[in-house]
Amino acid sequence: MTQKILAAHAGLESVQAGQLILADLDLVLGNDITSPVAIKEFAKLGKNSVFDRNKVTMIMDHFAPNKDIKAAEQCRLCRDFCMDTDITHFYDVGEMGIEHALIPEKGLASAGDLIIGADSHTCTYGALGAFSTGVGSTDMACGMAVGKAWFKVPSAIKVELTGSLRKYVTGKDVILHLIGMIGVDGALYKSLEFTGSGLASLTMSDRLCIANMAIEAGAKNGIFDVDETTLDYIRAHGAAEPRIFRADADAVYDRTITIDLSQIEPTVAFPHLPENTRTFGQIDDIKIDQVVIGSCTNGRLEDLKIAAEIMKGRKAAKNVRVIVIPATQRVYLEAMELGLLKTFIEFGAVVSTPTCGPCLGGHMGILAAGERAVATTNRNFVGRMGHPGSEVYLASPATAAASAVTGRITSPWEVPEK
Amino acid sequence: MTQKILAAHAGLESVQAGQLILADLDLVLGNDITSPVAIKEFAKLGKNSVFDRNKVTMIMDHFAPNKDIKAAEQCRLCRDFCMDTDITHFYDVGEMGIEHALIPEKGLASAGDLIIGADSHTCTYGALGAFSTGVGSTDMACGMAVGKAWFKVPSAIKVELTGSLRKYVTGKDVILHLIGMIGVDGALYKSLEFTGSGLASLTMSDRLCIANMAIEAGAKNGIFDVDETTLDYIRAHGAAEPRIFRADADAVYDRTITIDLSQIEPTVAFPHLPENTRTFGQIDDIKIDQVVIGSCTNGRLEDLKIAAEIMKGRKAAKNVRVIVIPATQRVYLEAMELGLLKTFIEFGAVVSTPTCGPCLGGHMGILAAGERAVATTNRNFVGRMGHPGSEVYLASPATAAASAVTGRITSPWEVPEK
Repeated sequence: MTQKILAAHAGLESVQAGQLILADLDLVLGNDITSPVAIKEFAKLGKNSVFDRNKVTMIMDHFAPNKDIKAAEQCRLCRDFCMDTDITHFYDVGEMGIEHALIPEKGLASAGDLIIGADSHTCTYGALGAFSTGVGSTDMACGMAVGKAWFKVPSAIKVELTGSLRKYVTGKDVILHLIGMIGVDGALYKSLEFTGSGLASLTMSDRLCIANMAIEAGAKNGIFDVDETTLDYIRAHGAAEPRIFRADADAVYDRTITIDLSQIEPTVAFPHLPENTRTFGQIDDIKIDQVVIGSCTNGRLEDLKIAAEIMKGRKAAKNVRVIVIPATQRVYLEAMELGLLKTFIEFGAVVSTPTCGPCLGGHMGILAAGERAVATTNRNFVGRMGHPGSEVYLASPATAAASAVTGRITSPWEVPEK
Repeated sequence: MTQKILAAHAGLESVQAGQLILADLDLVLGNDITSPVAIKEFAKLGKNSVFDRNKVTMIMDHFAPNKDIKAAEQCRLCRDFCMDTDITHFYDVGEMGIEHALIPEKGLASAGDLIIGADSHTCTYGALGAFSTGVGSTDMACGMAVGKAWFKVPSAIKVELTGSLRKYVTGKDVILHLIGMIGVDGALYKSLEFTGSGLASLTMSDRLCIANMAIEAGAKNGIFDVDETTLDYIRAHGAAEPRIFRADADAVYDRTITIDLSQIEPTVAFPHLPENTRTFGQIDDIKIDQVVIGSCTNGRLEDLKIAAEIMKGRKAAKNVRVIVIPATQRVYLEAMELGLLKTFIEFGAVVSTPTCGPCLGGHMGILAAGERAVATTNRNFVGRMGHPGSEVYLASPATAAASAVTGRITSPWEVPEK
């Protein structure tokens, strides 16, 4: 799939793994941290316009609403640049969301697209059948200027999914399971291509979560076969006409991995790598200080629905801070209308305005030395959410919600009765 | 009023301005910034318990949910101290709110109380007929240890209110008008005592706002005559039995100021002092970058209702970030149930979890150089909300909302038709 998208965007019949190609871009993305560097690089090129004002987007999400003066200056630089270059899709406080949740929601990504973004989790849009990948700010600058980028064509790993997920098991458990199996470099500079009969049972939310964390296995990108679920999503969000690329029957893969979804259990990645996965039974009694439900990985409406289902009528454990962060303004509004935010507040959680916030140790829930968080985020490296002596346990919204109830890392299958 | 409360708490028949007294405390308050200093001082006293576990409260509001590692460490110190000393009223993420909004809401302040808090806006509870004042962290430490504090008895200024406020004119306009009249040192170490027939038309929200900003005129405290409105509020919030102290007919005042509420107009304090007040007609066309509605001054339900009334069916001006911060979890929930939060989101505002945040340049909306904010907060000193080259214009929720509609400082009386 990936090689066909790349070939089409390079104007070639076909490409091979390892080949260097120059390909046309459908979207170039930056956030409030990476865009300022790209803007400075862009200035060196002596251009005063971007290649296509509708195909560049900047989203203020990491440290917005501005956490400090530096964040304020960075957002201002982005704001001024987008005004000067008349960029259509600039998302600021009030219309914003976490970039990788906002872009599919706004219909800015479609099947067959080639997307680069100065953020490692740009691989999220593979869920829509796009090739999308994270790049450095310099590549973003060149992409904004000429609408093209150089790529080394990746080889592929086929992930054949069968069966369907059990209750409270979601995409997050699938991708944690996969990373646990192959390791954080298990797909280094390869394409993770998800296909198989199991796909039918995965929601777009599951797929977006899985593609989002492809980078945590080192993958260049993650990509899903396009089916009716994908097409429904693309149409519902008003994205461009999908271009469907399917793998040939004799496509060459480095490796094929088969995952029976019905065997996946609630999975937790222990500190300090996403590959340190355990399932319940291998998990001791671990007391926690904070629960974070949100991020580009798990801040969508479906994620909040699951968390609310578990929290409803229960109360947060004493001395556990529970922070819920809807990923976009639309998710916030929809969650409010469904009564989910009310459930969170009554549970004893706080609801934050959309932001990446604590995921990268930015703000809105930073950990002190020795503190432990269960988080639905994507990385649990040393110091990721605060002090180098703190710990992050990655889990699904269901596991995070169950843990918020007990104050200990808890399976959603074992949450105490009300 | 103030002198009678002080005398009663010092076990004296009467006291006189300038007299030094040792008085019993009904409540000792600290937040996540000031409590850590007090806790360290308390440790030097060699005590391992506070004077009364029900009369000490710590509220994590300034930099919570933790904005950075330092904030996380400070909150943890408070949390551990409150656990060790078994303090009843410790408010952490999830049950919290901005201290001066939370304390009246939780029924922790009543008429006739003597309250000290390591935060300058502790004077807020004067709205309930209490004597309450801000102290340093060392005084907080001693207060926690022995339940007493030394005071120099203040002299008083009588503020006689007549008439009633016009639409969209609220307590914030009254206190800004008064500070504009007497200056930021106009009531230095004095008691501002509010009384008169005009009181009847002021809501508790108006009074809490006015008392809150007494410190901005340099006052030791602000205090209101207790009436049925006060007593209803105290009962509704389950506070202690009120003790009503009324000024004698021949009470001595340094000065009497009469304010006809019906003459008050929407008022704005220009940078960089709360005394730099202007009314519309004296205000040029001033473009703004941000609007903040919240804080201990104006983050209550009534404040959000007024803002929502103006925002309803309208859209935020382009390039203005609008940040709404309900002052407590209860205000958040009530505002949600009344549909106010929906109005804010549809207007294009973001809604933050309760925090002091941007008011003191903490987080959640910091300004870059040259940026201007209209804020319902209480101070507009140089750099208060971020960069020293930024500007804060203090106003009521109505004026802030009207300004968010136009992108310029705008009177709520002149907000454009929908």
